[in-house]
Amino acid sequence: MKTLFVCSESDVRETRVAVIPSDAQKLSKIGWAVKIESGAGVKAGFSDEDYKNAGAEIVGADFVKEADFIVAVRKPSEEKVKTFKRGAFYLSLLDPFNEKSLIKAFADAGITAASFEMIPRSTIAQKMDVLSSQANLAGYVGVLKSANTLKKILPMMMTPAGTISPLKFFIVGVGVAGLQAIATAKRLGARVEAYDTRPVVEEQVKSLGAKFVKIDVGETGQTEQGYAKALTEEQLELQRKGMAKVCAQSDVIITTAKLFGRKAPRIISAEMVSGMKSGSVIVDMAAGSGGNVEGSKPDEIVITPNGVTIIGDTCLEASVPATASQMYSANVYNYIAHFSPEGEFVQNFDDQIMKMSVVAHNGEITDDRFKQ
Amino acid sequence: MKTLFVCSESDVRETRVAVIPSDAQKLSKIGWAVKIESGAGVKAGFSDEDYKNAGAEIVGADFVKEADFIVAVRKPSEEKVKTFKRGAFYLSLLDPFNEKSLIKAFADAGITAASFEMIPRSTIAQKMDVLSSQANLAGYVGVLKSANTLKKILPMMMTPAGTISPLKFFIVGVGVAGLQAIATAKRLGARVEAYDTRPVVEEQVKSLGAKFVKIDVGETGQTEQGYAKALTEEQLELQRKGMAKVCAQSDVIITTAKLFGRKAPRIISAEMVSGMKSGSVIVDMAAGSGGNVEGSKPDEIVITPNGVTIIGDTCLEASVPATASQMYSANVYNYIAHFSPEGEFVQNFDDQIMKMSVVAHNGEITDDRFKQ
Repeated sequence: MKTLFVCSESDVRETRVAVIPSDAQKLSKIGWAVKIESGAGVKAGFSDEDYKNAGAEIVGADFVKEADFIVAVRKPSEEKVKTFKRGAFYLSLLDPFNEKSLIKAFADAGITAASFEMIPRSTIAQKMDVLSSQANLAGYVGVLKSANTLKKILPMMMTPAGTISPLKFFIVGVGVAGLQAIATAKRLGARVEAYDTRPVVEEQVKSLGAKFVKIDVGETGQTEQGYAKALTEEQLELQRKGMAKVCAQSDVIITTAKLFGRKAPRIISAEMVSGMKSGSVIVDMAAGSGGNVEGSKPDEIVITPNGVTIIGDTCLEASVPATASQMYSANVYNYIAHFSPEGEFVQNFDDQIMKMSVVAHNGEITDDRFKQ
Repeated sequence: MKTLFVCSESDVRETRVAVIPSDAQKLSKIGWAVKIESGAGVKAGFSDEDYKNAGAEIVGADFVKEADFIVAVRKPSEEKVKTFKRGAFYLSLLDPFNEKSLIKAFADAGITAASFEMIPRSTIAQKMDVLSSQANLAGYVGVLKSANTLKKILPMMMTPAGTISPLKFFIVGVGVAGLQAIATAKRLGARVEAYDTRPVVEEQVKSLGAKFVKIDVGETGQTEQGYAKALTEEQLELQRKGMAKVCAQSDVIITTAKLFGRKAPRIISAEMVSGMKSGSVIVDMAAGSGGNVEGSKPDEIVITPNGVTIIGDTCLEASVPATASQMYSANVYNYIAHFSPEGEFVQNFDDQIMKMSVVAHNGEITDDRFKQ
């Protein structure tokens, strides 16, 4: 029986675990001997006892050297990769555009490495799409964090002592994260406006009860993967002018504009921030990949001279680690189950999902973009 | 022209300010020379500049010695009371049931001291009812704090990776705070159950879309002031058994049961807490007056051996100081305006509101309950 090993995360700030107990049980049922590193699930709320009850075996970190399949949330160190068993299959988020040396380490060690970021955005792959499942939660957490930072309440309240006006949210970038941010802010009673360079999302914004901000920047569009195309310098200037006006009226701005494999676009300038009211809050969900907001810092909270708080949390979903792990774990299970049509896991490179997600195989880097 | 002085708060944890700039302006319009201690509004988001623009004068702390009317959010020290001008009128929350020595200090200093806690709960006094206006916000903040502590998201989500179940909230005590907690948890998509010893609130609970938990404890009722009557020991035991069952199924419990002028009832026992799931959260809104929950500590976060987090924040509303100050300030303005029918503030003891709110006057303690 082949062994599947669930690693503890090497980044101490990471709270999620790659496989939750109920999915460990499901993996056993399709033929895996599931082993989990002791304590791996604790931060997400799952004890070793929970895993034992689900039929998994608790092992030490060294088990990674003999596992046939290794799964984690975040990338391992290059040192660790060298200890993996030759021919093993490894699956996690790998940040491959920024980790070429790590991808080489996988190839050199003879590991087949699959990166969740590279899963195609197709209908069939949706159920293993980690970027979407986690972005969804990040959108929810972004709104909650802003609500906890504000000195005001979000909803309108009519009380004997007078009426409290609802706060105004501005969501920039309407992908999975942006849509969930809109929905959550609306739930809490805020007035919500949203902006995206892709006019196609206007209907989705409206269906959530929010207002779609229109800034005419000429011809735009989206890539085949559903990401926004990069704007020209001229378009960006038109966008900036329109944005500055909306920013000045907003109590909270949440930016979610990421570009696949590239630096995030700078959308909110320092000037726009300086035009905002004291006490306003910005959540820059792209702070980890260059930042949509001038002055945001990855994993820091910045307070500007005019009293605006800029939250640069790069992994908001890690604040709800039980739910985030549940989603991630489902994505992991669905990936493995998809390639186990007859029970055994098959590395089927005729399948686009396998072909696109695997970045190193048989001693080779299999995607030219990640060659050094 | 008589002077009205807005004090800085002596408790460093206090974030609210008693009068916000727009109400300072309104007070000027009805004839007061409004003075505010420098920096008094900063934590609530109001600068000295904001007050100047509203026509108030920024002064030092020493102005308290010459003011005709002094207003604050929380009680002053006895030392400070001694410095007030004889005959001055003082208004704030005074916690008079626990501060007999302070009330005596007011009497000894010849100050007329009014306590917001003692405002009657009548229709006409609603607009100056600080306990209600602040409890409302505390209910909102309690839910947000629990959401930020949980490892899970509140709402149900149906995603390609599977369905996330909504969390279950249990609100104990359905007064102003409890109702707002129900409304906020419902807004965020939680399933909500609520309990109160007064069957009369069942309709209100249901109208917010929550389930009313019925535990038969025999005859109960409410006082003239709208508070729940204390239960007998036998009734408490029946209540406990019913509660334990609901607690074990809840992800979040928010308790709001306070008794006017007395210690809060102990409703959630350590045994009930030990029956809850790891990762659950309790917010004990009565932690400052004895606690509804065994093991809660005022202004501390306790994590039990079985992984339940008990939040004992005694002033949740101070987490949204701009809104809380806006409400408090409206209450202050309405109190003063109510007693200024012809423009000038009149100490009219024929009015029940004045009679009940004033606890010291003309060198006497005017409410026997506060005599030492």
